[in-house]
Amino acid sequence: MATHPMTTSSSATGTPVATLYLSAPAAAELIRRKGLRACIAGIADHITADFLRWNDFDKSARVASHSAGGVIELMPIADSVRYSFKYVNGHPQNHRFGLPTVMAFGVLADVATGSPQLLSELTLTTALRTAAMSAVAARALARPDSRVMAVIGNGAQSEFQAIAFQHLLGIRAVRLFDVDPAATQKLAANLADTGLHVTVCARTAEAVRGADIVTTVTADKTLATILTPDMIEPGMHINAVGGDCPGKTELHADILSQGNVFVEFAPQSRIEGEIQQMPADFAVTELWELLQGHKAGRRDAQEVTVFDSVGFALEDYSALRFMYQSALELGLGQRIALIPELADPKNLFGVLR
Amino acid sequence: MATHPMTTSSSATGTPVATLYLSAPAAAELIRRKGLRACIAGIADHITADFLRWNDFDKSARVASHSAGGVIELMPIADSVRYSFKYVNGHPQNHRFGLPTVMAFGVLADVATGSPQLLSELTLTTALRTAAMSAVAARALARPDSRVMAVIGNGAQSEFQAIAFQHLLGIRAVRLFDVDPAATQKLAANLADTGLHVTVCARTAEAVRGADIVTTVTADKTLATILTPDMIEPGMHINAVGGDCPGKTELHADILSQGNVFVEFAPQSRIEGEIQQMPADFAVTELWELLQGHKAGRRDAQEVTVFDSVGFALEDYSALRFMYQSALELGLGQRIALIPELADPKNLFGVLR
Repeated sequence: MATHPMTTSSSATGTPVATLYLSAPAAAELIRRKGLRACIAGIADHITADFLRWNDFDKSARVASHSAGGVIELMPIADSVRYSFKYVNGHPQNHRFGLPTVMAFGVLADVATGSPQLLSELTLTTALRTAAMSAVAARALARPDSRVMAVIGNGAQSEFQAIAFQHLLGIRAVRLFDVDPAATQKLAANLADTGLHVTVCARTAEAVRGADIVTTVTADKTLATILTPDMIEPGMHINAVGGDCPGKTELHADILSQGNVFVEFAPQSRIEGEIQQMPADFAVTELWELLQGHKAGRRDAQEVTVFDSVGFALEDYSALRFMYQSALELGLGQRIALIPELADPKNLFGVLR
Repeated sequence: MATHPMTTSSSATGTPVATLYLSAPAAAELIRRKGLRACIAGIADHITADFLRWNDFDKSARVASHSAGGVIELMPIADSVRYSFKYVNGHPQNHRFGLPTVMAFGVLADVATGSPQLLSELTLTTALRTAAMSAVAARALARPDSRVMAVIGNGAQSEFQAIAFQHLLGIRAVRLFDVDPAATQKLAANLADTGLHVTVCARTAEAVRGADIVTTVTADKTLATILTPDMIEPGMHINAVGGDCPGKTELHADILSQGNVFVEFAPQSRIEGEIQQMPADFAVTELWELLQGHKAGRRDAQEVTVFDSVGFALEDYSALRFMYQSALELGLGQRIALIPELADPKNLFGVLR
């Protein structure tokens, strides 16, 4: 592959012409070298900082292309300095083809010139940023004395959720359930050396019983009811991660109407989130309003709080910023010639000579 | 960079897990080896074939993020088999930073699994596909005896327009004008060995006089009036390429109201095209209706026809298909690990071990 020296830059802007490429193995190396916990915490800090300047961003619901087997989405966002987008699919049956359910990559670009600065894998990074986002929301919403978390759905995202909540919330014990026992065994094995107390459960209700926080992170693209009102105990925080596209939900509607519901970006959540089941004027609080102190979060230790997470473009913008800074800091990634370098920018034809 | 053998494939679908990456230098090599004329003709054939099955596609206007200096856009489209998107910017002042006005890249993906199959530069490819699209429209709309073309705007796209029209329409002479004389000199020099008869003109009106086809391909993001009604002669075909975002037009409104106007995808063209100047119900014909024979094109040799081109996602889909096939055929490009390869797709965490 043709690469360019790291020092290549356009004369006026100082922006490198060549794009930094961070492959999946390079991102894994980055995470190993910085440490998974430090990466999740770093992304959580970037998410918090970016949500605190929510109104700086040009926001829109993601652009989805639905098909029989799944969905492919583009998630753009920009402020006055940086633009980012993520490509992400969701194909619940992909494991049959040996492929991840969710695959993603994205770009961070310079708004002033439109130059792509970073092209990065985001399959692994999305797992980190989703867990970081869940932890940021739970820090603001869950009871401070939360120590036990149920994890319903033990697939690709589940380790990251467990570790984020251990590190950022103080969770000490996790109670696991998945319809696929092999997935639960994999999760339990991966958590074996984390210090978390792990309990494998036979049913959702068993896993949820006594938990302070309930994380649902299942993958079926069907109107599923993973949690029913009878399972919900006073004071629980529900971190509903898996329901994230039309026709894909995890919570019974009564849990939403009885709880205090928080979302990322309401126009997108009303299409994709748990609240797709509710009327268009169903009251929700956007998380930035809570983080900025405009709205209250949990009112008391008995209230049930719900974070109806679908994944918003700003979280990927934050994660891409973190990965870009970290890659530059560690000298990871390679410069690629995604854009032609032209001696005379009006002479594109010249590159064919 | 970590690469994967060309033969890597997921067991069930036969789809390679690793993405083929075609850099700007690799695309230039591809075009040199196949020949520029053959590439433009091949892309024109793909565009025609795809426009003939217009109703197979899930179409939407592109998603634009505007800023003071320009615009960054995402252009997704899909049928039941393939999904594609293009990232493209438009920053008229980029030449001051030594950067192209328009930079682009894109992806072709498998709808069944969401796997990205090709990541390709599209800066160069966009110039070819825009010229191919213009030629496809002009073949259906211009007088068959057209031999002389005016080219107003002599920047990065202009050589490709001239060569496409020479090869696919039979244009023998081009009359050039640009507010920047250096751009015109560059274009004239690049066309020196093509066999085209080249005339450098001092004003737009001089270049347009006597032309059969008038191509406008200027870059200013302002409501410019490059062509005025007094310049238009009976029987002309106007190929209006430069006006392609809100606030960016090239034609006087009277040219549109007096001519027969054709567009790619009306919902997008009403936002971005020359027809943004016209009422929302201004009559236009979508090109696919003409190509499929549902609507008439030019009625007689005196009529003025206008192709109000803005660039539609389907053209990039067609171009990406052509580049992917050609790259596989010539063995160009490299496999990259944009997506992690997982022994167990539910064990994403395992790649960190």
